[in-house]
Amino acid sequence: MSGQTATKESTKTLLLEKGLEIMFEKGYNNTGIMEVLHATGVPKGSFYHYFESKEDFGLQIINYFQNSYDAKLNATIGNLSLSPVARLKAYFEQGMEMASGNACRKGCLIGNLSTEMSDQSEVFRKRLLEIQVKTTERFANLLLEAQQKGEICQSYNCQDLAEFLQSAWSGATMRVKTSKNIEPMKAVMRVLFEKILKP
Amino acid sequence: MSGQTATKESTKTLLLEKGLEIMFEKGYNNTGIMEVLHATGVPKGSFYHYFESKEDFGLQIINYFQNSYDAKLNATIGNLSLSPVARLKAYFEQGMEMASGNACRKGCLIGNLSTEMSDQSEVFRKRLLEIQVKTTERFANLLLEAQQKGEICQSYNCQDLAEFLQSAWSGATMRVKTSKNIEPMKAVMRVLFEKILKP
Repeated sequence: MSGQTATKESTKTLLLEKGLEIMFEKGYNNTGIMEVLHATGVPKGSFYHYFESKEDFGLQIINYFQNSYDAKLNATIGNLSLSPVARLKAYFEQGMEMASGNACRKGCLIGNLSTEMSDQSEVFRKRLLEIQVKTTERFANLLLEAQQKGEICQSYNCQDLAEFLQSAWSGATMRVKTSKNIEPMKAVMRVLFEKILKP
Repeated sequence: MSGQTATKESTKTLLLEKGLEIMFEKGYNNTGIMEVLHATGVPKGSFYHYFESKEDFGLQIINYFQNSYDAKLNATIGNLSLSPVARLKAYFEQGMEMASGNACRKGCLIGNLSTEMSDQSEVFRKRLLEIQVKTTERFANLLLEAQQKGEICQSYNCQDLAEFLQSAWSGATMRVKTSKNIEPMKAVMRVLFEKILKP
């Protein structure tokens, strides 16, 4: 982008995009501001116009990622033309497509940073936990609706089941990164939709 | 240990122990050999007597961790005085106790390194995958036995269920690190042992 004119908003977006890409590859600690500046051609002073510090940059990358993730959640879990269980299935199928599209690299930014940062920074830990709790809440509400509609067994505690789904999907996402195929996600989906999420 | 006399084996163990401790805290990339030497008082030349390189050190730490993990698996999953489902429960309960004992820090070394290293090193990825596959196999055999003894539903595909359990437990282990309480593990256990692993 060096030498191109860019509006302030697009310069900030450019920094966030590149930061996200590098942070997926290397984690937070090994993402260097200089590397981001070099790759984008944005001058240092400009960076500090948008971000107070590396920590602020990291937190804004999390928000940037989370906004696009929320849009994906809205398009699947929020798709009211589908039944609750079908919405959940659409969400997981989308996750599998994304993993395939990334050649099973990257994993999930929230999972990656939770692993890397939870013992190192209370600021990151709290923000990551906030995101995790919100996703659990969304799953739990969906499962309650599925229960009300008779799609899943009435005896499930939906909060527990939501926690369980989230753990299973986070773990599968991590394992896909290691196996470099989406079989761990497929296995979770088979057990979930053929056995567990039944009336 | 500086100044103390130590046998060759105990010097190597000392390096592995300290390396494991630091790698739990900082991951592989940010574990410095100099930091390990400084913390243990072992001279550099001695380090390179035991380990060819930092990569070799990392891989040997994985093996060292995995040996103690296998011993824990043997004491629970391998405890033939218990029924298959009770053995699995003992394994998860042991995991919860360890997480509590670590103040919900650290997580699982295999999970941490899988997240950090799977896109960065084929050597690490393959070793980590090998360990994951072996654990899945062990779960699958246990579940087959549970099925044969009528402890769990006959219609489960035990390979899929084993993959599912492993993903759920890996995800819960990661989420415990972020929530700093063992509730995510407890939720997985409630759903598993009260709902899924039933005849």
